[in-house]
Amino acid sequence: MSDNKGVAYIKPGVVEVRSIDDPKLELDHPGNKRQCHHGVILKIVSTNICGSDQHMVRGRTTAPEGIILGHEITGEVIEAGRDVEFISVGDICSVPFNIACGRCRCCKERDTGVCLNVNPERPGAAYGYVDMGGWIGGQARYVMVPYADWNLLKFPDRDAAMAKIRDLTLLSDILPTGYHGAYTAGVTTGSTVYVAGAGPVGLACAYACQILGASVVIVGDMIPERLAQAASFGCETVNLAEHADLSAQIEQILGVPEVDCAVDCVGFEARGHGGDAGEEKPATVLNSVMDITRAAGGIGIPGLYVTGDPGGVDENAKVGTLGIRIGLGWAKSHHFTTGQCPVMKYNRGLMMSILHDKAHPAKAVNVEVIGLEDAPKGYSDFDGGAAKKFVLDPHGMIPA
Amino acid sequence: MSDNKGVAYIKPGVVEVRSIDDPKLELDHPGNKRQCHHGVILKIVSTNICGSDQHMVRGRTTAPEGIILGHEITGEVIEAGRDVEFISVGDICSVPFNIACGRCRCCKERDTGVCLNVNPERPGAAYGYVDMGGWIGGQARYVMVPYADWNLLKFPDRDAAMAKIRDLTLLSDILPTGYHGAYTAGVTTGSTVYVAGAGPVGLACAYACQILGASVVIVGDMIPERLAQAASFGCETVNLAEHADLSAQIEQILGVPEVDCAVDCVGFEARGHGGDAGEEKPATVLNSVMDITRAAGGIGIPGLYVTGDPGGVDENAKVGTLGIRIGLGWAKSHHFTTGQCPVMKYNRGLMMSILHDKAHPAKAVNVEVIGLEDAPKGYSDFDGGAAKKFVLDPHGMIPA
Amino acid sequence: MSDNKGVAYIKPGVVEVRSIDDPKLELDHPGNKRQCHHGVILKIVSTNICGSDQHMVRGRTTAPEGIILGHEITGEVIEAGRDVEFISVGDICSVPFNIACGRCRCCKERDTGVCLNVNPERPGAAYGYVDMGGWIGGQARYVMVPYADWNLLKFPDRDAAMAKIRDLTLLSDILPTGYHGAYTAGVTTGSTVYVAGAGPVGLACAYACQILGASVVIVGDMIPERLAQAASFGCETVNLAEHADLSAQIEQILGVPEVDCAVDCVGFEARGHGGDAGEEKPATVLNSVMDITRAAGGIGIPGLYVTGDPGGVDENAKVGTLGIRIGLGWAKSHHFTTGQCPVMKYNRGLMMSILHDKAHPAKAVNVEVIGLEDAPKGYSDFDGGAAKKFVLDPHGMIPA
Amino acid sequence: MSDNKGVAYIKPGVVEVRSIDDPKLELDHPGNKRQCHHGVILKIVSTNICGSDQHMVRGRTTAPEGIILGHEITGEVIEAGRDVEFISVGDICSVPFNIACGRCRCCKERDTGVCLNVNPERPGAAYGYVDMGGWIGGQARYVMVPYADWNLLKFPDRDAAMAKIRDLTLLSDILPTGYHGAYTAGVTTGSTVYVAGAGPVGLACAYACQILGASVVIVGDMIPERLAQAASFGCETVNLAEHADLSAQIEQILGVPEVDCAVDCVGFEARGHGGDAGEEKPATVLNSVMDITRAAGGIGIPGLYVTGDPGGVDENAKVGTLGIRIGLGWAKSHHFTTGQCPVMKYNRGLMMSILHDKAHPAKAVNVEVIGLEDAPKGYSDFDGGAAKKFVLDPHGMIPA
Repeated sequence: MSDNKGVAYIKPGVVEVRSIDDPKLELDHPGNKRQCHHGVILKIVSTNICGSDQHMVRGRTTAPEGIILGHEITGEVIEAGRDVEFISVGDICSVPFNIACGRCRCCKERDTGVCLNVNPERPGAAYGYVDMGGWIGGQARYVMVPYADWNLLKFPDRDAAMAKIRDLTLLSDILPTGYHGAYTAGVTTGSTVYVAGAGPVGLACAYACQILGASVVIVGDMIPERLAQAASFGCETVNLAEHADLSAQIEQILGVPEVDCAVDCVGFEARGHGGDAGEEKPATVLNSVMDITRAAGGIGIPGLYVTGDPGGVDENAKVGTLGIRIGLGWAKSHHFTTGQCPVMKYNRGLMMSILHDKAHPAKAVNVEVIGLEDAPKGYSDFDGGAAKKFVLDPHGMIPA
Repeated sequence: MSDNKGVAYIKPGVVEVRSIDDPKLELDHPGNKRQCHHGVILKIVSTNICGSDQHMVRGRTTAPEGIILGHEITGEVIEAGRDVEFISVGDICSVPFNIACGRCRCCKERDTGVCLNVNPERPGAAYGYVDMGGWIGGQARYVMVPYADWNLLKFPDRDAAMAKIRDLTLLSDILPTGYHGAYTAGVTTGSTVYVAGAGPVGLACAYACQILGASVVIVGDMIPERLAQAASFGCETVNLAEHADLSAQIEQILGVPEVDCAVDCVGFEARGHGGDAGEEKPATVLNSVMDITRAAGGIGIPGLYVTGDPGGVDENAKVGTLGIRIGLGWAKSHHFTTGQCPVMKYNRGLMMSILHDKAHPAKAVNVEVIGLEDAPKGYSDFDGGAAKKFVLDPHGMIPA
Repeated sequence: MSDNKGVAYIKPGVVEVRSIDDPKLELDHPGNKRQCHHGVILKIVSTNICGSDQHMVRGRTTAPEGIILGHEITGEVIEAGRDVEFISVGDICSVPFNIACGRCRCCKERDTGVCLNVNPERPGAAYGYVDMGGWIGGQARYVMVPYADWNLLKFPDRDAAMAKIRDLTLLSDILPTGYHGAYTAGVTTGSTVYVAGAGPVGLACAYACQILGASVVIVGDMIPERLAQAASFGCETVNLAEHADLSAQIEQILGVPEVDCAVDCVGFEARGHGGDAGEEKPATVLNSVMDITRAAGGIGIPGLYVTGDPGGVDENAKVGTLGIRIGLGWAKSHHFTTGQCPVMKYNRGLMMSILHDKAHPAKAVNVEVIGLEDAPKGYSDFDGGAAKKFVLDPHGMIPA
Repeated sequence: MSDNKGVAYIKPGVVEVRSIDDPKLELDHPGNKRQCHHGVILKIVSTNICGSDQHMVRGRTTAPEGIILGHEITGEVIEAGRDVEFISVGDICSVPFNIACGRCRCCKERDTGVCLNVNPERPGAAYGYVDMGGWIGGQARYVMVPYADWNLLKFPDRDAAMAKIRDLTLLSDILPTGYHGAYTAGVTTGSTVYVAGAGPVGLACAYACQILGASVVIVGDMIPERLAQAASFGCETVNLAEHADLSAQIEQILGVPEVDCAVDCVGFEARGHGGDAGEEKPATVLNSVMDITRAAGGIGIPGLYVTGDPGGVDENAKVGTLGIRIGLGWAKSHHFTTGQCPVMKYNRGLMMSILHDKAHPAKAVNVEVIGLEDAPKGYSDFDGGAAKKFVLDPHGMIPA
């Protein structure tokens, strides 16, 4: 090590690559200090820019100046704590973005997204994220991963892993997250699905719907390039900037105005449809998916909704209270699943599909590999609506 | 027959018992006319007043003058249509309040609460209810039940059924409805549960939580008599008129401020807690249950939310749009299940528990049997907050 | 009509196409006579020869001379009983091979494979099958289908259906049956699976495993042509005539000697592996799948095991008692699901996948369309191990 | 410590209490040596004699002379390894009998009964049991528990725990094991159930059926005292020594000859029914439960079946191969779940039910507390058919 660098949030709209301390097997955070003999140090092979990082970078959170970003991490173990037993130096592993202890009730029940022991403030933690326990982010050259025996997914073969690293890098967050949204919405063989949002999570979700056997996947967004990306792997698309009436569009595609399942991959920064397309309307997606989901259908909500949003459109939105047409959902007997994806529930199976050449998510979300030093440009292109998933390559290890 | 009478809604606050036509094996409703050779005529053994009837009687719906109320029906078959094959004259049967065809996709998938073939307006139908297909209600002496082979739950033995009719009469709606709320919230062996509302559905739900094995059931309401009724069968209680801080109350009971699961048995006519106790605040219950349910917990919502409420507190409430703190639910990875209970999923098992003396719900919800002619007083006492479930006995068949 | 013909079982090894009576809306069978106003008459569009028909034709059952065979039926409604409400003349429909009433407890719980009302002998019925209620088989020009509103799956569009009829014809039995085996074995995204048997059900099951997202599907059989067929759509294969040690073969393919899930698509006419390949050993498949399935794995058993087998290898086998290594399964915490597939649980979703061009099972199982009069040759070729699924085309309706 | 004693198996029919070494935070077993900094030392509060210990003591296994028995352990932490983070000295905890690492695929998927890292021979381990990894048993004064943060269930309050210790001691094995059998058989509200065997696991299972809401629980055994014990908490009973025809007995009780679900709590040492009552017939229970379980019903098999049984009745039985009437199960579409209960899935919820006074299993299984030195008598009385569950009290800590 001794040459660590990381992507730091500076102020709204600005990130920069800085020299940072080498990681140690401990966490030194106010309110969450701890030794981590159960942890490992990773040399980072790949680390992705995520849409939820953008919430911080846009200044929609209380993230402090200097926080090192990054929770989508794949790496090689270069040092293992004394209490690590089943992970070894040299292993290449995927890191679930949710940090979990593997010892609390929630972990034992597979709800690793809300582990009780890793964040003194509230259940659930993540690397490099405001209010998520103070764990240092992984858009860097090196990072510490605690509870390594529990958290890490080891790739069985090093060469096979490197050959598919563009796909495998998506296991740390967006592929399981998209899958979780689809799975909890009830997507299965033959389902018709509407996916709101064609950013990387939306595209990963649309692809996961196909993995789960959906017969038709319809993706809605306002950016033509992203919709074209969705169409590239067989999805139907609706441009919401042009069409306010989503159900009419669905009827045109399916012959009926409703789908079996819907997934909200947008979250609280939603904008109005059609004529209102420019304006932030945080409940738009939730309300539109209830409109177009059939009675008894399911709705998955992996898109982020927050308890505090300093930039919210009104006083209610600032505390995460939105005007939701619950009467409509109730009349249709909808069920809803919210929250962070518990990555560990899904990453192993998805890894198997990638390694055995059944799933090719990198192509679906249009992975573009860039250097760590190019992270600021990646953030800015992504914020501008590029139909790409930016993957940082801090050590130049990713084959061309 | 030839002496049929039924409970008619006259105007807000007023119902009356009228002579009505004898039922026929057909439905004669504008937009929903049909022959019903698959139906039977029931001589009604018992028929209950439901909290959701009160929404109509209070004038919170567009129910027309003269509509015959009643969807909680138990009866004896006195005539069977030519297409009825497995139900016979003389059978005593429970009628699920949701009318279902047994032939559409939703019925085949057990979602009988949103059957596609019984209400041309939208999925789902019920007896004696506004906008639910025009089927004539069963607070009467006789009623027609369509698709009898599918809809009816036949009691195996006539004498055994009459001996437990006070319990069995609850199978048509509130016991399965309460059970559905608890079940979809994830209540199982050892769960701690909060049930919002101690009306009959809330009490039936609290009792269903016990059937499902809950270790602690906490019931919240503002009416001391109803809370006393909940306490009578082993529930903990919180008087929300006195205590605005529900989580503090729960902490006092459990030692922690959260429960595993919560069930909203109140719905859209909710009122504020504590100092706001008098005031209608339609999202109060939904928001408070998110506050006091643990991360990864489940929330069942059998309480009714509507798409149109002429008496709503504001323009949003009038179309069923409420200010919901979705950011909080999301942070806690909650899942939510809404809608009418599909009674058929649960009524057979609950019947077995009653017949074999394992479940005694009538005592839990405090059944009081009254004559059909006393229905108006029943409605008014119930609206006044009586901690009772009124069961009408149109033929004097119920043993004392 | 008036020109009905059907495939009759004559004696072991012999079937012939005979003129038979036109179907009527009634069943005239000793012990199971009934009117069927709920039924329809179908003009048969396609009807398939099934491996389970071979059990009868080989003389391994007590099937009577003259029984009209065939339970895999797709057809056009040409007459509907007076009580049929939602199916119309002209509809093209798939017929689940299990006959079900849509009114009993099992049907209400989706267990249509063991309907209580269609076979007085025991739960469950089928068309054209010994001991399954006496319903007339559908390897014919016309057939009667009872409880049509419940049983039939209507294709939404006639032309679209005819264009994909080779795929859709598989919805009546083998595609759902294979899917059921895979689904109950726990096959999901990323699973490794072993499918025993590469006859049509085995191939359909292997294909269903892919639909369900399996990462590797390994198919075992003794007939090279059938294994080649499995390989044609991406399966790995093991020739059990050559290799007695299945786990060694699996280890060669996967790197580990066990799979996540296994499906027995062979049933009671199993033969020994390797050196014993010629000899009937009815428990071979069950015991070998326990050997090669990982601890906590699941085993689906759609392959037929019978309660009476006149041709069984010993006295035990003749009553369906086999020597099963249950101690091994127990040590590995296996779970097992047996029985007829309840087709209705799966056929709608699979139809959607076919209609929207996501699933192409006809190619996987190598459908070959032949005339009704060629049925005897189809039976004989199939019995000889042809790697084909024979589909009869009684009216020349299937496009080339 | 320094005064440790344990119950040792000496030879068939003989156990004795011996002085043994104090436990250390390591395992010293041929083929399974390891440091256990993740472990704790427990002062044992209670430790139960289990029916599966009897298999060893009867000489039906290859257990070596001197093995310290005991896998049903509850204790107080007196020393914690350096890697233990969330369990502290002074905590009173229940120990699941299955040892699990909390780091492998099976543990992450909640299949702790077949943990991959604790027994080099095969998945799954237990304390004091032949072929289960060499971990030292807990019928002793002190014992070492590895992976303590993962394995231990901490009781929230010391005094409350000691007040209910007779019930809580059953959480280490038989209550979860009985519950698992019932749960995997599908027992739920209103089910009718047959439980084979009225030993402690059978009684615990019958009680668990009641917790799960069964309407009728029928218990079969050949020992009148055990049947009387089952009757004492509301079960129906069948004396199989007197009645060979189980279905006739069930019909007398239920009016129908079948139950919804059945649980085999006997395992491989089963004996014939009726006239064959004295004779070992290892498949009797499996075959009889298929006979009396309804079509589509479920069968749970917590009773032990082994891969090697030196005392088996014939060559097949000696390798765990039994003559099972699989054709019957298949015809009825049964599903079967075998294997060790993964205790951790159930123990927390059951603990809550006990602590909140909802479940009283000690009374159901007739707990009798005896001193550690009385273990030999306990084994012998239990083997003689005493209708008791013997709980050893090595430190005289259990209140009278």
